[in-house]
Parts: sequence; structure tokens; C-alpha cells
Amino acid sequence: MNKKKIINDPLYGFIHIRSDLVFDIISHPWFQRLRNIKQLGVTDLVYPGAVHTRFQHALGAMSLMERVLDQLRFKGIEISDEEHEAARLAVLLHDIGHGPFSHALENSLLPGIRHESISYLLMNEMNDQLGGALDLALKIFRNSYSRRFFHQLVSSQLDIDRLDYLNRDCFFCGVEEGHIGVDRILLMLNVHKDQLVVQERGIYSIENFLNARRFMYWQVYLHKTTVAAERMLVNLIKRAQALLRAGEHVAGSPTLQRFLANSYTLDDLRTNRDVLHAFAALDDHDIWGAIKQWRYHDDRILSLLASMLIERRLFTIRLGQEPIRKSTVEAIRTAISAQYQTLRADASYLFAYGSVTNEAYTEGEKINILTRSGELLDIAQASDLPNIRALSKIVKKNYLCWPKDVSLKIAN
Amino acid sequence: MNKKKIINDPLYGFIHIRSDLVFDIISHPWFQRLRNIKQLGVTDLVYPGAVHTRFQHALGAMSLMERVLDQLRFKGIEISDEEHEAARLAVLLHDIGHGPFSHALENSLLPGIRHESISYLLMNEMNDQLGGALDLALKIFRNSYSRRFFHQLVSSQLDIDRLDYLNRDCFFCGVEEGHIGVDRILLMLNVHKDQLVVQERGIYSIENFLNARRFMYWQVYLHKTTVAAERMLVNLIKRAQALLRAGEHVAGSPTLQRFLANSYTLDDLRTNRDVLHAFAALDDHDIWGAIKQWRYHDDRILSLLASMLIERRLFTIRLGQEPIRKSTVEAIRTAISAQYQTLRADASYLFAYGSVTNEAYTEGEKINILTRSGELLDIAQASDLPNIRALSKIVKKNYLCWPKDVSLKIAN
Amino acid sequence: MNKKKIINDPLYGFIHIRSDLVFDIISHPWFQRLRNIKQLGVTDLVYPGAVHTRFQHALGAMSLMERVLDQLRFKGIEISDEEHEAARLAVLLHDIGHGPFSHALENSLLPGIRHESISYLLMNEMNDQLGGALDLALKIFRNSYSRRFFHQLVSSQLDIDRLDYLNRDCFFCGVEEGHIGVDRILLMLNVHKDQLVVQERGIYSIENFLNARRFMYWQVYLHKTTVAAERMLVNLIKRAQALLRAGEHVAGSPTLQRFLANSYTLDDLRTNRDVLHAFAALDDHDIWGAIKQWRYHDDRILSLLASMLIERRLFTIRLGQEPIRKSTVEAIRTAISAQYQTLRADASYLFAYGSVTNEAYTEGEKINILTRSGELLDIAQASDLPNIRALSKIVKKNYLCWPKDVSLKIAN
Amino acid sequence: MNKKKIINDPLYGFIHIRSDLVFDIISHPWFQRLRNIKQLGVTDLVYPGAVHTRFQHALGAMSLMERVLDQLRFKGIEISDEEHEAARLAVLLHDIGHGPFSHALENSLLPGIRHESISYLLMNEMNDQLGGALDLALKIFRNSYSRRFFHQLVSSQLDIDRLDYLNRDCFFCGVEEGHIGVDRILLMLNVHKDQLVVQERGIYSIENFLNARRFMYWQVYLHKTTVAAERMLVNLIKRAQALLRAGEHVAGSPTLQRFLANSYTLDDLRTNRDVLHAFAALDDHDIWGAIKQWRYHDDRILSLLASMLIERRLFTIRLGQEPIRKSTVEAIRTAISAQYQTLRADASYLFAYGSVTNEAYTEGEKINILTRSGELLDIAQASDLPNIRALSKIVKKNYLCWPKDVSLKIAN
Repeated sequence: MNKKKIINDPLYGFIHIRSDLVFDIISHPWFQRLRNIKQLGVTDLVYPGAVHTRFQHALGAMSLMERVLDQLRFKGIEISDEEHEAARLAVLLHDIGHGPFSHALENSLLPGIRHESISYLLMNEMNDQLGGALDLALKIFRNSYSRRFFHQLVSSQLDIDRLDYLNRDCFFCGVEEGHIGVDRILLMLNVHKDQLVVQERGIYSIENFLNARRFMYWQVYLHKTTVAAERMLVNLIKRAQALLRAGEHVAGSPTLQRFLANSYTLDDLRTNRDVLHAFAALDDHDIWGAIKQWRYHDDRILSLLASMLIERRLFTIRLGQEPIRKSTVEAIRTAISAQYQTLRADASYLFAYGSVTNEAYTEGEKINILTRSGELLDIAQASDLPNIRALSKIVKKNYLCWPKDVSLKIAN
Repeated sequence: MNKKKIINDPLYGFIHIRSDLVFDIISHPWFQRLRNIKQLGVTDLVYPGAVHTRFQHALGAMSLMERVLDQLRFKGIEISDEEHEAARLAVLLHDIGHGPFSHALENSLLPGIRHESISYLLMNEMNDQLGGALDLALKIFRNSYSRRFFHQLVSSQLDIDRLDYLNRDCFFCGVEEGHIGVDRILLMLNVHKDQLVVQERGIYSIENFLNARRFMYWQVYLHKTTVAAERMLVNLIKRAQALLRAGEHVAGSPTLQRFLANSYTLDDLRTNRDVLHAFAALDDHDIWGAIKQWRYHDDRILSLLASMLIERRLFTIRLGQEPIRKSTVEAIRTAISAQYQTLRADASYLFAYGSVTNEAYTEGEKINILTRSGELLDIAQASDLPNIRALSKIVKKNYLCWPKDVSLKIAN
Repeated sequence: MNKKKIINDPLYGFIHIRSDLVFDIISHPWFQRLRNIKQLGVTDLVYPGAVHTRFQHALGAMSLMERVLDQLRFKGIEISDEEHEAARLAVLLHDIGHGPFSHALENSLLPGIRHESISYLLMNEMNDQLGGALDLALKIFRNSYSRRFFHQLVSSQLDIDRLDYLNRDCFFCGVEEGHIGVDRILLMLNVHKDQLVVQERGIYSIENFLNARRFMYWQVYLHKTTVAAERMLVNLIKRAQALLRAGEHVAGSPTLQRFLANSYTLDDLRTNRDVLHAFAALDDHDIWGAIKQWRYHDDRILSLLASMLIERRLFTIRLGQEPIRKSTVEAIRTAISAQYQTLRADASYLFAYGSVTNEAYTEGEKINILTRSGELLDIAQASDLPNIRALSKIVKKNYLCWPKDVSLKIAN
Repeated sequence: MNKKKIINDPLYGFIHIRSDLVFDIISHPWFQRLRNIKQLGVTDLVYPGAVHTRFQHALGAMSLMERVLDQLRFKGIEISDEEHEAARLAVLLHDIGHGPFSHALENSLLPGIRHESISYLLMNEMNDQLGGALDLALKIFRNSYSRRFFHQLVSSQLDIDRLDYLNRDCFFCGVEEGHIGVDRILLMLNVHKDQLVVQERGIYSIENFLNARRFMYWQVYLHKTTVAAERMLVNLIKRAQALLRAGEHVAGSPTLQRFLANSYTLDDLRTNRDVLHAFAALDDHDIWGAIKQWRYHDDRILSLLASMLIERRLFTIRLGQEPIRKSTVEAIRTAISAQYQTLRADASYLFAYGSVTNEAYTEGEKINILTRSGELLDIAQASDLPNIRALSKIVKKNYLCWPKDVSLKIAN
């Protein structure tokens, strides 16, 4: 069978599958599963177009990696065929460890476990299945390969992952301002002493990229309604966990129930293949399928949150720079307890507060500029304006969200 | 609360919600449900970008309706505010009766029931809930309103529905050739004696539209791999029905189980609100959620088909103009029975054959051209080439599909 | 100096200059001259965006050639580096012989001389200047290279030239319907026995391409207002020639005056380098610069036509399938003579009639389809509908155009 | 005649001509002249796609004005039909006073005269011709209309002019990073006490707009090769002036010769209609037509610069933050004098130095943000980061450019 196939992509036109190995990995059930995990979780409740999946993103990232490596070769950087394929595989698989609603659920289903760690476990096992074909890809992924720029292309402040997701997310959301000049950025990349660098005349493109990313954070990723929906989802899952662990029946696929009933650690995933495999079977359908049934549960909090999410009756949210006062939190708890005639402890499921942060540029892991005279500079130093330094300031906002029908008079 | 909201759309930029009534309808749980029904069913197995939903399409169609009505007003056609809103509502709700994987499942879950009939039932009930606010929209939808062009905008060979879905489907699939000139078509529309007509200088745009539609049929809607996946889904549902009705346990949400267990008729939906409401709760999650669990069912055929769909190990398919011979069908039945050690009767679940047809233009319900001299002509008569007449020929192709691992030597 | 440069292109993003030779040819004054020759002549009087130049088109075509050759190599077709560059150069230079307003002026300035012949002469001389570096490119251009598919990529019914100009013209005109799926077409091309072929599953893309091309003919290239403007330009140049040859002073650059005063033949261009070089110095500025001055000429017809063109007071035109009757022509000649108090013979400059033809597909020089079974078929035979055969019918329309202020009552 | 026409535009699809008055103004020879003035002067020497004209921009700006006014009406701002049309006319005509290569030639042909002043003179005369139909448009243009937001839409830091030109320039240049979210910005505009304001949730879009504008300055408007080409053009015109005023014959259209021979002041234009009309007849063809002939002039400097521009053999340029030292200037003057055996005084025509500045945001004429609480804030205060304040810092770069074949060893 001819496995050199072509896949249509709304952004890039065609994505080529260049080898049997790539084909086999894309066909792997763990990779196919990414078809059913939306890239942006609940964001489509705000931007209805944002229903694109992690499957598309992974393919897109592989495709960009191919282009950047071809460009680097054209510039005279030696890249062997093996390295070329390994780098494409590394980025193809870099997100394989994402579960459904990753950002929302990492605080409930798998507390404290980063998806990169799970990606590594899954890649490792795939590597075993494939007789070591992913050895080099794994090295690159783990940053243990001597030519560090490969890892930097997979994971850094200016990696292929970000280039694809920014481009893709703004495309599907219909948010033009997030648009970046991917082609020019790829053209400006180079390798200097095995480090990924940007040629000096590319600094405005990088600035543009950092600004676009910051824009997307405020306009999409941390959009206040998205934050509210995510908090509702977290509260809902926590309620389901509490009920289940208290012995109540809570509907859901066997896989989901397993993760609701247990608090697995990274160690569990590492040592118990069964748990890892179960995780690799979870997708959005498990979550939404369960929520749909929870609407009819006897527990009022569970059914209320489930209905609200399904029918998009989302929490009202205040998001801003003012701190959330303790007295406000207590006032809302009181109001909710009264409104829903629930215990004050249980009222916690019906509101949320906390903070979100946005850091467009992290000076620690810098983006290197290669000047015309051959020097390496951090971009925050190279730009002709203090804006990139400005962008590296962490911006923090505080939020408080609660059901729309709870009327709240807030002092400030 | 201000309900005049704006929704981002990747195709049209912004879609405006112009009134409280529109806002309330979009907020209705039956409408929100469309968020979880993919416009193109299983097509994303072939075009990964095709994950857009019926929710987006309905909003897009409403937005196009607004534009065409504004244009018509500018041309001097009197359209009252009430008509304007009713026409927008009619197209907004025209697909509300679609279930998950509509085209695939209309032969299994709700045999013989057209989604338009269900749309009508749901709109009717919403109208009751809203105290008659949808009266005129319903009239337009049912073609009982005297000014017929409103209905023609909602449903005809050149309706707003098709303009949006063609545009949207090719956008998300990444198939540039399906692109049509929506703006020019809208500009060319006019009303003549309460009929929708196209101005003569628009004929090439209509030809282009018909050609694009035909292209999308062969390249996307009837893509051979899509056809294979749909047939697998139909077979899988039928198998689940058979098992359930034979008394076996088959996992699935209570709602889905109800539809698997019973063969409801349109009359059941009409007379039994409970059935109608249950239908209006079904979405893609019910189907995929069940399929995910069926992988572990004891029934080998059920688990096999479920795994194949989930892991995208799709049937091989031959699609072409040659007829499928009876002897070929019997040969494949035999091969499958042998391979899977199953009864010949059960082998039917593991392959499929039949035909698909593509008719780009139906001469019966014609597209009217208004010539410069004031005559009305069927476009098939007006064009300067016999191609539109050519397009009105029905093209039929036959298919036969079966598991990849069943080797089959076929004569022709 | 590093000559491996990159040029921004609104359609393709970046166009790469891959070698010093390509750089030197692009830098040649004859090639730079294409910057000042609009691709579509007077079309921007109808589509204001259509101000793109032959320079952009030539670069775009080179860029598409690179992509198609890379694809063919990937499919296993052996293409040497020398062939790769020669094919790119052949298409880069294929239009170098175009003068300003080529299609309009080939009937006046250089009657009966095809631009391909001039391209050949110029390429030949450039080849001499470059010490034979264009030998193979010239062979390909002249179809004397044994591997015929290279020539077919440069010039055939499905050549790179057409792919770029269709794509580019519809982009700049803002005519979405002319959009074609260039990427898919390139993917579908293959080579079979040194012939360019299209793989069978590409037939719908080819149909789409032929339909788009036909659309562009009627909507843009043969748009009735464009035809009227072109006829005005031809009449104006003819008037200037007549005046000059009658001994009157007619303003204009020395180069233009030379071509107005003489009727050069292809032989003159071939044998007299000076004439060829003069031609290679003509561009849009010579024509428009002269027309601007002619507004103030004493000859009323010259000044009238010049003012009308500059100020866009274009002829009224009738374009349709009805024949233009002799009696109508005489009636209009009479009306114009009366209106402008001019001799009947001179009235000819103030109107025009004739015919235009559109042939979307020429069966003679066919597009070959390579079927799955390895046969070669003309696409007109391969398609599942008679539309391509329909497209190969020549459609002819007749036009008559005259000044707006001449009122004319026409019978039909 | 029906004057309600539609014009295709590659950016906006269709632009509507809504009234006879608008049609008549677009048909005016002074407006038609804009077809022959490129929006970006010599920039197409760097970005070949940048051949779009001031004609397209003026129409585009009118079209955006229509959209923003419709939006404001929808938000409840009262705008009479007369105001609506006047605002559209004001922006349609705001650039009518631009001559060819405006930015380059304002230092040579019409020293010290701003194009806005000429726009005003031309609009005034058109108003007389039209019996006062432009009275209100003129008031808006001159900022003497009481409702100040109309003028702010025509001319301010966030005016329709900038929105269209940024959008259009990046589109034609093929520079994706300059892309701005025009639709969202229009949505965010509002009117507060007759002032144009931006709603608070639009601040990120404004930031994006300011960043994009800054990007376009460095990447396009002040691209170093563009700067070099402009300086060459200025030097060339100055040389032609010098020769003509010294009594030598210099080819060129009579109109151009007039402006080369005389140094007109704004007062001349104001008091002498003949001079104003002559200016209103100048376009790119006059300039390029003359340059083409100057190649053959006896004056070596004139012919050299003309050939270099025509053949795109542009000056080498250094552009950066380092100051240009006097000693460097003298060194280059010496080198040029030697190389071209010319007088030191004349050497000035063969190189240029100076500075360019880029100020993305001017705090003086601020962009007003209307906060949720009803306050007005300068955006530089409202943003959550110091970047807009950073953007308001003026960045200055110094340049020095000279012929490529003059080798220069520069110290720094």
C-alpha cells in the first residue's frame, strides 16, 4: 500500500506524509484519538469556529517543521535525513499526552501532572512498539540531543508548536489580529553554534509574533467568558469526583469513572501501563457524554452545573486588575447559599475566583537574535524600542465568577 | 441585559444578533445542541478540518439572509421589518431538526423521516413557547406565505442554505475549488412578481455555483472514503439495534438506547412530545460515546466495527460507473464469512454496496433568470453553452466496500 | 554579492531566486521593463485592482514551475538540476516579448506579429549575451527538447502560464469565481512517456480550471467595457499613425513615434537589432504619456478619443450573440458624422464593431488524463458528463460600440 | 442612466456607489487621474505587488466610512443622510491633492506644499462646479463642522484613511504582518460628546493597529531600499530642474516641464487656476515618461540616475541608529567625484544622507478610550502595559546611500 499520502488542511493547503513511519504513527490509535480532542477546550462556547482539534494542530506543526528544516538546509545547515524525520516526529507527537480539556482538567482529573510528561510516556511506549524508530525523536523531545536547535524548534519561546497554534487558533476563531507572518519567521530562522537564532532583519517579525500572541491571550485564551466556562467545568468534575468517592452512582464511560474515582499520580502512569492506556482512551466525548447525563442526576449541584454548561448559561464573570476581596467572596458565598438553599461548603461549587497571568515574553529562556556583525543578542535587547522589555512584564488579572441569577452588589 | 451581540465567524468576520428574539432562539437548548453536531458527519475522517458544526452553519445562513434582504431593499423591493426578521429566523431554524450524522443515520435510527419534518415540529413547539413569535417564520418555512421568494431564499435550488454550506464546507475542508462568489450571487438576486430571480448578467456566477456544487459532491460529500465510513456507521448502528432488540446489553446514553430499541415514526414524534424531546437531546457525543464503549462488547461484529471506526481502519471501497455484480457481492460475502468465521447473514454487517447520485441542477425546480428584456428563463435555457443542461443529467455511481484485510479478487 | 534573494508576492508569499543566473536575468533591463507593462492592459478601467504587471506574473510562473518540478521529482520523475533551472527560465522569459497593451496593439503598432516570436528573439539575444546559458531554456521554449513535458509545462492547455495568470488576474480583479485550486492541480500532474498528464482523480480539478477560465473570459478578459476601451485605444493609435504618416506632428516619446511612423514586420525585428531594442524599450508610460498630450492636439478625433480614454468616458457597447447588421453600422456612421461634423471615412475612428470568441477547451491540443489502468485519455472523453465537450464549443459574440452621446435607435 | 454602480475591490469584494453625486465625483477627471498615481510611489521596486493606486485607496476609504457610519447609526448615534454622504465624500476626496510620488517629490517639484492644502483647493473648485454640493464635506474636511467626530474619522490617529491604507498596502505588498482587524476596530468605535472614542474592550485591537502600523513603517514605508530609490528620484528631479533652469533642453511633457522650470508656492496654486489645473494633470506617466527619455540626455548625471532608476540599479544604503559622520560624507563625495570624474558640487546628486523617523503613536493628538465606567482616557494610559507609551517614542534612523559601484570603506 502506498502510504505517502496527502492531507488537506485549511491553513496550509496540503500536508504531505513523507514516509511509512509517519503514516504508521498517524494511524496509531493514540494519535487518531487526537481527532476527538478540541485544541481549545471550551473556547468554542465563545468562538463557535474554535472546534479544530489537536489532530489538525499536530499535523500542521509537522508540516511547518518540514518547511523550516528545508529552509535551513537551503541556507547550508547540514541536516541528515534521519534528523529531518526525527524532528518532524518529535513535533508531531509533542502533544500526544494532552487529555480532553487539558488546561481545565489538569486541576481535577490528573492534578499536578503536566501533559509533556504524559507525551513522553506515550512516545516511549510507541517507540518500544516500533522497535526504536523514535529514538532520535525522543532525544530531541527530551533535549538530550547534542544539536540543541532541534529541541528549540520543538519547544522554546519561538517554537514550531506556537507558530502553528497561533496561526491555527486565530484562523478558526475568526480573530484576524492574531495573524502572524509564519513564512517570514521561518525564513528568518537560522542556526548558529547549534542554537536556533533569528536573523537581525527578522526582529520586527518576532515583535509582531509576540504582540499577536499577547493579543490572543487576552482576546481568546483568557477571554473572560472562556475563563468562566473552564471554571464551571472544573467545579463540575470536582463535584462528580466528590459524589462518586462518597459512594453515589455517577454516570459516565468506564474510563472516565476510573479517573473520577482515583487520584492517579505521574508515578501511577509510569508504572502501571493499564492506567496510561486508560488515559490514552479519554477524549472529549467521555466528558461531554457524561455531562449530558449528569443533567438528570439527583444531586442538585451536579445537575445544575451540567445543565448550565450544556445550555451555555455561563457564570457572570468580573476579570480585572483589582484584587478580589475576602469580603466579596464571603458575600457571594452567602448569596449563593441563600439562592440555592445549599450548605455554605457546597456553595463553593457554584462560583470561582482566582487569577490568570499573561507573559508575552519570558526573559529567562530568551529568543536569540544574530546580528549582522555576528553577535548573539536577546531580542529584548535588540529591538529599537522598549516594547519587548515591556512585553516581558507578567500581567496578572483576577477573576470572580458566579451564576447569572445570583444578584450581587459589589462594593468597588 | 443587552442581547444585541456579535459572534465571530471565520468566514464572515462578525455575525450580528439583531434582536432579543434572535438572541433567545440562539440560546434555546435545542439550538445550542447544534454546537455538538458536526455539519459533515464523518467527513473529518477524510478532511480533518471538517469539524465545523450545524450551529455555525445556521448562524452563517442567518447572516447571509440579512445581507440578501438588505440588498433587495436597496433595489427597491419592499420588505417589512417583520418579514426581515421572520426570514432570518426561518433560515436560522431550518436545520434544527438534524440529528447527529443525519445523512448516515436516517436509514437506521429514524428510518424514512426527513429532517425537514422534524425541524417543523421543533419550530412549532418553540413557537408555542414563544407565544407565536415564529408564526411568519413558520409560514415562510412551509411555503404558505404569499410572497414566495422568502421561501425560495430558505429552500430552493439557489437558497441561502446552499450558499452558506458550500462556502463553509469548502473553507473548513481546505478545498479551494468549491469556493463560490457569494457576494456576487447575492448582488444578482432580485424579485420579480414575488419570485426569486437572477439578473441576466449573473448567469456565469450561477454556472460557477452549480459547477462548484458538483465539484464538492464528488470531492467531498461523496468522496469514496466518506461513503465507506458512513456505510460502516450505518452497519454498526444496525448491529447495535439488532443486539439490543435481541435482549443483549448495549452501552450507550439512555437517550441513544431509546432510539436503538424503538423504531419511531414521524407520527410518534408528532404525537409524543417525549419522543420529540428525546430526539432533540441527541448529538454526536451520544453516538461516539457509545461507539467507544462498543469496542469492548462481546459481540465480535460490534466490537470490530467500533474499533475500526474509532481507529480509522476504514473499509476499502470501489466507486465507479460499473455496476456491482451479484456474483461479486456473493464472493465478498463468502470471503468475509471465511475470514471472520461468521454466519453469512451476519457478514452483511461487514460490507456494503449501493449507489450514490449527483445531480448538480434539477430542471424541475428551476433557477429563474430575468433577462434584460424582462422575460423569465430557466437558466438551463439562458446560458450560452449546453453545460447547464449537461449538469442537469443525474450521475450515478455504484460502490462496494469491505474490510481492508479481506483480500478480494474482483474480475472487472 | 549574495544573489539568492527573496521577493514578496501577495499570492504566494515568497518567491525565491535560486541562482545567480536567475538573478541576472531578472535584473536585465528587458526584464525590468515588464514592471511597467500591466498584465491586463486597460482592464483596470473596469476592475481598478487589475494594475498588476507582467513582471509579477513572470516571477509567479517561475515560482509555480519550481513547485511542480519539485513535486514531479518527489513522484520519481528524474529531472536534472540543469533541466530544473532551464524550465524555470523558460517560463520566466516566456512573456518577455509582450509590449504594452499587447492584445490591443498587436493590430496597430505591430500588426500580425505574435508576442511569442518576439520573446524568442529577445531570449536568443540574451542567450548570446550570457554565453549560451539559456540554450536549454530556449530548446524547451521552442519545443525542440526531447522531453516534451517541459515544453508542455511552459505552453499547452494546462500550462504554468495559465495557472499563474488565472490565479493572479482573479486575485487582483477581486473576482472570486476565477479562483482555481492551483495546489491540487500541481499535485495531479505527472509525466507519462515524456508527456504531461493528469492523474485520473484530478479530472474534477481540471474541469474546475476550465470552468474558471471560461468564467474569467466572459467576466474579465472579454468584459464588454474592456472590449470597448480596447477598441478605443486601437482607433486612437491608428489615428495617430495616420496623422503622423500624413506629416503632422504627433507628440510622443521618440521610441513610440518610431513605431507609429513605421510598420515593422517580424523580419525587421529579426534582422535589425535596433528595431528590436527599440521595441524592448516600449512600455505603458510611452502609450499613456502620449495619450495625455494628444488631448491637446488640433485634430479633433485624436483629442476626443484621447480625452475620452483618459477621463474614462468610454464607448457604449452592445455585446451579444445577435449579428451586427450592415444597416446598423451605416446608421451609426451617419449619426456620428452628423454629431461630430466629420467625414464619413473619419467616423470609423469613433466606433467599432467585430466579434470576440471564447473557447474554454480546444480538443486539438488536448489535456491528457492518465487513468488508473494506465491508459491515456483526452479529458473531454474522461469526464463523467458531457460538459467538457460542451466547453470545447467555440462561443462567438458580436459587438458594436460608439460614443455615449451619440443616440442610436437600434432595431433589434 | 443608472449611476448606482458597483466596483470590484480585491479587499472588500464590492464597493457601492450610492448616489449620483458620488458617481459624478468619481467620474471627474481629477479623480480619474488618481488611477495613474501609485499609492506607494517607488515601493514596487522593492515589493512588486505594490502597484495599487490612490484611486483604489480613495474608493476603499469611502467604503469603510460607509460601514463605520452604519455601525454608529446602529448604536444609536444620529447621523443624517446629508452627514452620511458628506463624510463619505470628504474621505473620498481627502487625497485628491496628491501628486505623483508625493512623498518623494514634495521636496523638489512643489517644495513645502502639503498635499492636504492642494486637496482643499481642488475640493473647493469642484464644489463651485457642483453648485455647493460639497459644502458639508468641506466643512468636515477642514474640521469646521460642529460634530467633530466626522473630521476625526477623516483625519486623526485612528482615521478611516489609515485603516484603509494599512490594510491595502500590506495586502498588495504581500506583508502579512501589517494585517489589522479592520472589522473589529470599526465595531469598537463610538461617539461620546461628539468625539470619536474607542470602547474599552477594543484596546487590544488598537494596540494591534499601532503595532501593525509601526511594523509597516520599518518593513515597507521606510524600507531601506525604498528610501534609497526615493532619494535617487529626488536627486534626479533636482538635476533636471537645474539643467532646465540653466537653459538646457530637458525632455518631458509640457506639464512636467512647467513644474521643473518654476518653483510654485501654495499661493500660486491658490491664485492661479491655471497652475492648479496643471498640477491636477500630473501623474506617474509624466515622471516615468520623462525619466525614460533622460536616459539618453547628454548630461552624464541625469542619464546615469535615470538609467539606474529604470533598470533598478539602486543605491546601496546604510540605515541605522548610528549618526552619519561629516567625515564619511566627505569621503563619499571624494570617492564619487573620482569615480565619475565630476565636480564635487555635482557629486551631491549621486548620493544622499539624512534621517527618517517613525512615531507609531503621538501622544498629542490622542486616541480616546471610553471606559466601562464612562470616563475618557488616552489609550497610552488605558493599556495594561507600558507598550503604547513605548510606541509613542519617536524612533529616528540615519541613512547614507550611494552608487553600488563606488566602493567605500566606512569606519564604523
